[in-house]
Amino acid sequence: MKRQTLRLLASVLALAAGLALAAHALAQTDPLPSWNDGPAKQAIIKFVQATTTQGNPAFVPPGERIATFDQDGTLWVEKPMYTQVVYCLERVPAVVKARPELAKVEPFKTVLSGNREAIARLPQEDLFKILAATLSGMSVEDFKAEVKAWLDVARDPRWKRPYTELTYLPMQEVLKYLRDSGYRTYIVTGGGQDFVRVYAEKVYGFSPEQIVGTMGGTKYGYNKSGRPFLTKEPRLLLNDNDAGKPEGIHLMIGRRPTAAFGNSTGDRQMLEYTKAGDGERLAMIVLHDDATREYAYGPAQGLPASKVGTFTQALYDQAMREGWVVISMRKGWKRIFAFDP
Amino acid sequence: MKRQTLRLLASVLALAAGLALAAHALAQTDPLPSWNDGPAKQAIIKFVQATTTQGNPAFVPPGERIATFDQDGTLWVEKPMYTQVVYCLERVPAVVKARPELAKVEPFKTVLSGNREAIARLPQEDLFKILAATLSGMSVEDFKAEVKAWLDVARDPRWKRPYTELTYLPMQEVLKYLRDSGYRTYIVTGGGQDFVRVYAEKVYGFSPEQIVGTMGGTKYGYNKSGRPFLTKEPRLLLNDNDAGKPEGIHLMIGRRPTAAFGNSTGDRQMLEYTKAGDGERLAMIVLHDDATREYAYGPAQGLPASKVGTFTQALYDQAMREGWVVISMRKGWKRIFAFDP
Repeated sequence: MKRQTLRLLASVLALAAGLALAAHALAQTDPLPSWNDGPAKQAIIKFVQATTTQGNPAFVPPGERIATFDQDGTLWVEKPMYTQVVYCLERVPAVVKARPELAKVEPFKTVLSGNREAIARLPQEDLFKILAATLSGMSVEDFKAEVKAWLDVARDPRWKRPYTELTYLPMQEVLKYLRDSGYRTYIVTGGGQDFVRVYAEKVYGFSPEQIVGTMGGTKYGYNKSGRPFLTKEPRLLLNDNDAGKPEGIHLMIGRRPTAAFGNSTGDRQMLEYTKAGDGERLAMIVLHDDATREYAYGPAQGLPASKVGTFTQALYDQAMREGWVVISMRKGWKRIFAFDP
Repeated sequence: MKRQTLRLLASVLALAAGLALAAHALAQTDPLPSWNDGPAKQAIIKFVQATTTQGNPAFVPPGERIATFDQDGTLWVEKPMYTQVVYCLERVPAVVKARPELAKVEPFKTVLSGNREAIARLPQEDLFKILAATLSGMSVEDFKAEVKAWLDVARDPRWKRPYTELTYLPMQEVLKYLRDSGYRTYIVTGGGQDFVRVYAEKVYGFSPEQIVGTMGGTKYGYNKSGRPFLTKEPRLLLNDNDAGKPEGIHLMIGRRPTAAFGNSTGDRQMLEYTKAGDGERLAMIVLHDDATREYAYGPAQGLPASKVGTFTQALYDQAMREGWVVISMRKGWKRIFAFDP
């Protein structure tokens, strides 16, 4: 009798041990399978292990684990043009249909002409007019519906896919790895906060309050039946680029990030601010050096200064000086996208 | 042999059943023990059960469960003066010590005189000067340290306790009940966002990004050794009162709340906005009708209009018309505070 009981207990224990082993194996699974072994991958894993291991001098309590990510060029493709700028330009015909008087007014006239070179030459202030006309003046719900409808049909010119598929698989793995390790993750983007919110939950798993972006004001009012609603206004509250990034982080999150990821001069202050915090901090910067699989426009690409764009040699030098880790897309990433290009 | 095995299995099953029963009993424990049975308590429990029970037509997915709380007069005592205003007035001597030229300038001269009646008569624009001088001009870290040091020693005039103990126990129970039910909770206050962040985690369990308050700008810069930091500026980004509350909610949270709690005309738009959403929504308003245990200054307190303050008869009428639930402190709450007064 006793033996039978022991046998049952042994089975239970074996099952428990099996489960423990399986859990251990799961924990040992590579959290970053799309990354080649190398300094960037090692830096991420070392950082996460150090900051999440109780007793480690670099341990960070779960509530204080904050990781911020630039979007354009860091989480998804930013070339040949920011997706939001494409949206604004392609939205112009609908705006002109609703306000026909704009058809003969610049810069709308040029945008309607479809002359790409002329559009590319539009000065900054004309671009702002286009942004204001396409990103404000409607209720927050109408804006969301307009962006969603566009994203459903718009296709990028190179891969002929929805823009929302052009996210970097290795960075999606970093997001998951950090979240699984108790990090709260945020997008900190120069793009419009409300624009990014429309798709960020579905595309990356960021809920609306985890989007820190360029912020415009809204105005509270009532519709004809007395129902309250918010209208998007062409009033800038915060330009979430450059120094605006740490300012936006303080406004929206209220803590200094533990880790930050960027790819351009617009991320410089966010990376500095993050790295200047006490204890272990991680600052990483994506280098676009893979013309075959994506684009090559960072420093040391043999490009004339005018074509280097937003990842300048000075930024690269600062990264080296301040211990930011450079992510070479060409060397660091086994795959770029989840789809087969 | 078989019997022995069965007996062991029976023990295991009994243990499992016991655990299930215990879990059930736990679930049946009153989540709001400081509330008297009545319409307010019933409204909260009915709302939470409906919105969190799968299959219920009012079910709200966990990610969309948002509850917002005004602070002053809703989560803690707001009389005889907002705690933050007390802070600003009591901070004036330190500001004048650092900038002696202010000692002979109004409104600082009046504040330094200690003449309470004269201070109470200061016009709104003078109050703004005091707020600007005491809430800006320093780094965000220094500000945090200053507020924390003050809170450690300041005592309220009636109960002679730290202001941070003057939170309403019944509302702390509502916060816990909602959080345990998958709600994300936020403070939405006319008070300064950075001020409330200093203590809200310890006092109520709100992390910094869950504080939506009146927002001032910050400015990114570097100290002498090149370390970056943010300075608080006297630049208003958003006045989180009245229409500013739904605007601030959109900016910081990006979703319409499922439930909102307030106590004054400054919460009107937040309550309207919440209640106007689709599906089940809860809007509640705290009525201060208990002069013995706290204060009585709402409508129908037999007070002259000038003393009714921020919960007007018009607000009460709107609450009745739009189905907001009134929380009578006198009738609804068994206890007001966690301490014994």
